[in-house]
Amino acid sequence: MMREPMTTRTRKIEVIHTLLRAGDKPRMRRTLERLDDVQVAGQLDNLPANDVLRVLRFMPAGRRGEVIGAMRYEAAALAVAELAPEEVASLLDDLETDDAVDILGRIDDEKLAQILARLDKDDAEELEELLAYDESSAGGLMSPEYFSVSPQTTVGETLATIQAAEEIPDGAFYVYVVDESERLVGVCSLRMLVTSRHAQVVADVMLTELITVPPDTDQEEVAELVSRYRVVSVPVVDAERRMLGVVEVDDIVDVIREEATEDILKMAGAGAELVGARSFTSSFRARWRWLGVAALGGMVVAMSLSRFSSALASVPTLALFMPVVAGMGGNVGIQSSTIVVRGLAVGFVETARISRLVVREVSLGATLGLLYGFVVGMSTIWLGGAEDPLRLGIVVGGGMAGSMVIATAVGTCTPLILDRLGIDPAVATGPFVTTSVDVMGLLFYFSLATLLLGVGT
Amino acid sequence: MMREPMTTRTRKIEVIHTLLRAGDKPRMRRTLERLDDVQVAGQLDNLPANDVLRVLRFMPAGRRGEVIGAMRYEAAALAVAELAPEEVASLLDDLETDDAVDILGRIDDEKLAQILARLDKDDAEELEELLAYDESSAGGLMSPEYFSVSPQTTVGETLATIQAAEEIPDGAFYVYVVDESERLVGVCSLRMLVTSRHAQVVADVMLTELITVPPDTDQEEVAELVSRYRVVSVPVVDAERRMLGVVEVDDIVDVIREEATEDILKMAGAGAELVGARSFTSSFRARWRWLGVAALGGMVVAMSLSRFSSALASVPTLALFMPVVAGMGGNVGIQSSTIVVRGLAVGFVETARISRLVVREVSLGATLGLLYGFVVGMSTIWLGGAEDPLRLGIVVGGGMAGSMVIATAVGTCTPLILDRLGIDPAVATGPFVTTSVDVMGLLFYFSLATLLLGVGT
Repeated sequence: MMREPMTTRTRKIEVIHTLLRAGDKPRMRRTLERLDDVQVAGQLDNLPANDVLRVLRFMPAGRRGEVIGAMRYEAAALAVAELAPEEVASLLDDLETDDAVDILGRIDDEKLAQILARLDKDDAEELEELLAYDESSAGGLMSPEYFSVSPQTTVGETLATIQAAEEIPDGAFYVYVVDESERLVGVCSLRMLVTSRHAQVVADVMLTELITVPPDTDQEEVAELVSRYRVVSVPVVDAERRMLGVVEVDDIVDVIREEATEDILKMAGAGAELVGARSFTSSFRARWRWLGVAALGGMVVAMSLSRFSSALASVPTLALFMPVVAGMGGNVGIQSSTIVVRGLAVGFVETARISRLVVREVSLGATLGLLYGFVVGMSTIWLGGAEDPLRLGIVVGGGMAGSMVIATAVGTCTPLILDRLGIDPAVATGPFVTTSVDVMGLLFYFSLATLLLGVGT
Repeated sequence: MMREPMTTRTRKIEVIHTLLRAGDKPRMRRTLERLDDVQVAGQLDNLPANDVLRVLRFMPAGRRGEVIGAMRYEAAALAVAELAPEEVASLLDDLETDDAVDILGRIDDEKLAQILARLDKDDAEELEELLAYDESSAGGLMSPEYFSVSPQTTVGETLATIQAAEEIPDGAFYVYVVDESERLVGVCSLRMLVTSRHAQVVADVMLTELITVPPDTDQEEVAELVSRYRVVSVPVVDAERRMLGVVEVDDIVDVIREEATEDILKMAGAGAELVGARSFTSSFRARWRWLGVAALGGMVVAMSLSRFSSALASVPTLALFMPVVAGMGGNVGIQSSTIVVRGLAVGFVETARISRLVVREVSLGATLGLLYGFVVGMSTIWLGGAEDPLRLGIVVGGGMAGSMVIATAVGTCTPLILDRLGIDPAVATGPFVTTSVDVMGLLFYFSLATLLLGVGT
């Protein structure tokens, strides 16, 4: 009787894709009937846009909107962009307004204009108003559908209105109390209404201390508030406290996942959305830039090291340890910057004690550097190969230790400085940190070599 | 009248820390009164445990539990671990059960036993039962407090029970309908009750198709269900469908953030929790292992390349381009593995079309490799320095292109294989991918060099 939800694992079987490829239409229809909207959506997310459209045509028109609404917005937008404007317009009727906005916001302007032209004037205006907000702001996330009453309404009247409402907005756990100029003055949960006497006016029942945000609030900040205050919806108000809409927790859940994905991808210099990795061209566009910076950095490394050519000619073994010296620096530096970037993102960095954070990271770099410098240095001596294995061991071990100290300092400070400058610290912290650690770490290593091995520069 | 929530930005001012340092007790008391629990908690999250305890002593005992409940569990656990067992026991009374479990689950067993010994027998048993579930499973997340009625209860009776309930559990948006053997048969939202006739029995009103999970479901999977099905709570049931508890969306919001943090930190080999980076020793413990693997890998690189010593001796310039060849490979490889790791985590990888994903990544590697190989190779020729700049340019450019092709293949396949083997693909994909790309990319580069530059191995 109760439906078993398909889990993350079983979704991987991707039945729909197999049936589509086999061209088995009757079985496809039966399978689609057996799966719920979310299960179908989960599979469509991982199909190319034209396959999504082929699958949608197997379903009754009424179901298509539901399935598209349950898809990830990025994937849904790719499919919707392929549809004729009039098809999109008819689909939109079945979508909730905030979902429609999230999908339409990812479609190019020309196509969007064609779609809006085919809608009712009222619907189109409402969508246009919402589309004007930044996609990643509270305004872009909010739903304009909410339940509101005036402060002098009684609890009984409010409950009666809710009962009479033909279609109650999906997130209507709360009734917002607004005054005659639409200004938000309080909120009642349905639970508060149910447990109050019917004769009381909502003004006596409502909560007046509530979390609100202006429409330009970044979605990450809205997510932070939801996570901290454990609320399931956040009203969006203008400068005069007039209600504009409500951000619901289900949208916030998606935002938090998207933001985390964005941070991870940005740190690697691989764009900001996973869907961008779906096609060769968009993936190329997202990635070539930071690789270019890394290539340029690599040329700087080569040029900075060129003055050590004669040292390399006399002790070529030095070259063999360049990867481990630079690599250990790179690895520990990325650890430091990852901790700082993520800590800043979730408000979990000891901002009041930055100096302590830097000192701790650098002393960790020194400790780990001495530890592994000793181990790798000893192995170098043991492996021999050079004229003076002891000195070579000291150079390799010392070079690695120095490189790791530099790396933790650069890895910790770079994102802190970017954040202070108002730049997103996740932006390619990775390629920047690894490249600058390469330059500085290897310069230190070769300087140590010329000093200790007596090879000229 | 309405309180302005402190935003992420303003929280950084960390007033409490400054007042604590200044020892200004009257102003500390006034400040704490002015801030709400969440605002105080947000600041305490970023203070060391002993400072947290000092601040808590400035507050009335009744408020301490609220503030601790609003802190991040990891930070709260660190502070609670410093308190005397009887102090913890009295604090627990003010915490919701699921918050208490999340905090106590992070405290060592001996201390935990002392705390539990000081609680009411019933409370202790309930907590012990919940603590038995894995911290990161649905059982570890769920709250045992929920509202349930039998199928034959009328809507009116149900509403009356809700009204009479002294303390309604916080997440009581839903009333669970269970049969005489406690088996879950359906669910009613408060909204459904309010909009139904009082004489109807809940069995006629309730939804029977609902998402449930067994207690051992991984929290990441619960989060996936919440995100997909847009529900605000998920009932946890045993094999006989008996209700065990409910996972609420506010806990899921935290889970999603924690999981993303875990993925990011694991990829860098920097542990799994940000709080672990707070102390030198725990950070050392989290990080030394993967750096050890990287150091070992670096030694393997040095040994594998040692047979190219004579090539390096005759063309030392080859060494100068090792960082850019290895670095470009490392960067593009990390991009590939980041996309796959994150895609797997959020169910956004074209699992049915793995081969297409691999082909696309590798052809991207080849395209970007040829592009930057050409640019860097040309610069090498232009910079000159070697005997035969043209051939050196071809070696550097070709080596880089080869390294990048190898890197995209390794970066894409490693997490896919780990996932297939049931191993978390995020686990140090970073250090593993960079090190193996170093080995393979540089071997390719030097092989090309011996081939084209005619230098012996």
